[in-house]
Amino acid sequence: MASNAHRVVVVGGGFGGLTAVKALARVDADVTLVDRHNYHLFQPLSYQVATGALSPGDIAMPLRHIFRRQQRVTVLMGDVVGFELDEHQVVLRADVPGGVLRLRYDTLVVAGGSDYAYFGHDEWRQVALEVKSLDSAIEVRGRILHAFEVAELNPDDQHSWLTFVVVGAGPTGVEMAGQIAELAEDTLHGEFRRVDPRSRRVLLVETGDKVLGAFPDPLPQRAARSLERLGVTLMLGHTVVDVQEAAVELREPDGTASRIDARTVIWAAGVEASPQARMLAEAGGAEIDRSGRLTVEPGLSLPGHGEVLALGDMVSVTDSRTGEAVILPGLAPVAMQQGRYAGRVIAARIAGRDAPKPFHYHDKGTLATIGRARGVASIRGLRFSGFPAWAIWLVVHIFYLIGFENRVVVLFRWAYSYLTRGRGSRLITAAAALPSPGESDS
Amino acid sequence: MASNAHRVVVVGGGFGGLTAVKALARVDADVTLVDRHNYHLFQPLSYQVATGALSPGDIAMPLRHIFRRQQRVTVLMGDVVGFELDEHQVVLRADVPGGVLRLRYDTLVVAGGSDYAYFGHDEWRQVALEVKSLDSAIEVRGRILHAFEVAELNPDDQHSWLTFVVVGAGPTGVEMAGQIAELAEDTLHGEFRRVDPRSRRVLLVETGDKVLGAFPDPLPQRAARSLERLGVTLMLGHTVVDVQEAAVELREPDGTASRIDARTVIWAAGVEASPQARMLAEAGGAEIDRSGRLTVEPGLSLPGHGEVLALGDMVSVTDSRTGEAVILPGLAPVAMQQGRYAGRVIAARIAGRDAPKPFHYHDKGTLATIGRARGVASIRGLRFSGFPAWAIWLVVHIFYLIGFENRVVVLFRWAYSYLTRGRGSRLITAAAALPSPGESDS
Repeated sequence: MASNAHRVVVVGGGFGGLTAVKALARVDADVTLVDRHNYHLFQPLSYQVATGALSPGDIAMPLRHIFRRQQRVTVLMGDVVGFELDEHQVVLRADVPGGVLRLRYDTLVVAGGSDYAYFGHDEWRQVALEVKSLDSAIEVRGRILHAFEVAELNPDDQHSWLTFVVVGAGPTGVEMAGQIAELAEDTLHGEFRRVDPRSRRVLLVETGDKVLGAFPDPLPQRAARSLERLGVTLMLGHTVVDVQEAAVELREPDGTASRIDARTVIWAAGVEASPQARMLAEAGGAEIDRSGRLTVEPGLSLPGHGEVLALGDMVSVTDSRTGEAVILPGLAPVAMQQGRYAGRVIAARIAGRDAPKPFHYHDKGTLATIGRARGVASIRGLRFSGFPAWAIWLVVHIFYLIGFENRVVVLFRWAYSYLTRGRGSRLITAAAALPSPGESDS
Repeated sequence: MASNAHRVVVVGGGFGGLTAVKALARVDADVTLVDRHNYHLFQPLSYQVATGALSPGDIAMPLRHIFRRQQRVTVLMGDVVGFELDEHQVVLRADVPGGVLRLRYDTLVVAGGSDYAYFGHDEWRQVALEVKSLDSAIEVRGRILHAFEVAELNPDDQHSWLTFVVVGAGPTGVEMAGQIAELAEDTLHGEFRRVDPRSRRVLLVETGDKVLGAFPDPLPQRAARSLERLGVTLMLGHTVVDVQEAAVELREPDGTASRIDARTVIWAAGVEASPQARMLAEAGGAEIDRSGRLTVEPGLSLPGHGEVLALGDMVSVTDSRTGEAVILPGLAPVAMQQGRYAGRVIAARIAGRDAPKPFHYHDKGTLATIGRARGVASIRGLRFSGFPAWAIWLVVHIFYLIGFENRVVVLFRWAYSYLTRGRGSRLITAAAALPSPGESDS
């Protein structure tokens, strides 16, 4: 390893960062990949962990295993807490003496992702659950299963425990609502003696007037019908005004207030860029939008800092023709295409070639599933729903899942649960965080 | 469900309790199974979760799923905090108003299991790790992997992070030591850039003079040789005198003191019966031994309380001929045979038949693995080691694992890791408890 080789630091092991590092495989550079976790998460399937269909290990792969053959890639576990752009340094909180580690770079790639937005109500974050990180998905799994356990213990007071509110009818919200309904209907049915799991209510609350608003007609309508058939109650045009421990308060479309007793609220609404976007903007004097997204140049660089690239759903990209900041959908394909683009930018720079043409997103389509063997897909102008959409969804997800072992296990689990309506990973583990009575001595 | 049917409460969803409930399938009784977790854990494979070979969901099955077709079985999640024998009540801490639930029984079966013993040093429990519950196995997995991550961050201070001390050379200790050695040698090797995972030290500390002391000669010697070939350092005749956060203090065979810098200490020594044994003994005026085991009658009942049965490794059983309390090995087959016996006792009682003959343990043999494709087995006087022992071990464990899906997935994972030396589930999740830098916003 040449000590004066070009040093690339990539922050974030999600789809964007991972693809960027892969794209540097044949580039003469020493690459350091930093993430707070030791694994890459296949985030589009987190909701399946949250509802017991897959195990956490099925959709997460150790980052250092992914890059074991890329000898010039070093993986370090740490949390970015600052950027020192003048010194070309990233500041990490990590398990080193003093707790802080600085990494020097020649080129920096930041792919910090996004979080859900609580629209100024950060106190809701303490109560509502999310299906974003793997840990949060494991927590949701424990909390949903725990709610049914509490209902079985308290058959006379089951109502609020068997009410599940999902906020936000984008793909994650739709998938979660469908899966919770199905979990109760197919999997848990027949396993309880004092309550009927099928008496659960799953409410999907959405401020807009349709589900999957980003999909072309008639897919939102078809998705809505599939959800209703699964037993999900759609509450379109409803806005959440408060989230409490045992209730959610809503504003109905006509402006009146209503209250729903519910112990489990899953938040899947709004997007807020990773705090790393703001840190970068402040360090580099760049702009961020209302959702905290950093505006980057057409070539993904931080304005005034060609050596810093940022990508994924923490950025909006300035269009080279119109000069306007474009917000691309927060999907894995966007991050992956940007990661690959970042790799090409760095390769060109090291080789002394011209920079590639500005980044352009090739929209290959969008997919969502709604429970067992139903889905919607919009691909190159074609629209699919029902079983064909689900089949496409399955093939795409298996294909992009990292690791042969994961692919085989996930395919087997899906086949098995398709046939039996079972779910193989219904565990309430310690990460389910609730001060549960049983964790004292384990 | 007849309201005046015989009511059986079974405490504990381990091998003993599970088998007892199964044995009651055709008996005219309403059965309530109580456990603090929502799943049965296949505990003999916990160590494989702790070393990333299997996923938690692979070896745990929801209790209510196991009994979904046994309509008269109700599963409740709760933690036993007391027995009111005169009132025929079990007292649970559970998620009910007031936090306490009392269950009435006509017959009570208590199968509370055991914990590791710290020989009066409960403060070591805070520092040392265990592979007992599923949550503890997930924590160990995170802590072992985290130690390698910290070593990679601190190549100049890797020694204590890459030293793993396993205390106790029974089956669990031997299996853990072998697996940690192999994890570093086969799986992690080549994935680190700043440290060499193979420079790890795995020390197996045992007070006795051999490993697997319960196995007949020459199996302990063969196991010792296999362990050494894997790179495990055997420290026989050594006694732990202190466990600290970054070191273990030992007394060597010649009486001198020594100190080992180690960040990861896994405790697999000694057995202490579940606190439920003491609670039962105090409630019923019975005796417990030094390890907290309750002494039960030859028919497994609590002396003076024929309606209370206790079993598994929280009891010793009085021999009907000699009158002496016999301590059976703390193995799944013992608990399962006792669970089945308890079912027969209850069935006879309800049918008005004579009680079955006193419980007798049929020793079918013992098995242990030492890493990849090596093991020792003692079966009906025959002794196996190496590959044949491992093959027997594999067949037996797949056979007894609950759930078709689990069997297929585990078999596939083992085949895959046998071929690739990979491990599919190497995640550091939140349950890994360390105040790690990365968990702040997930």
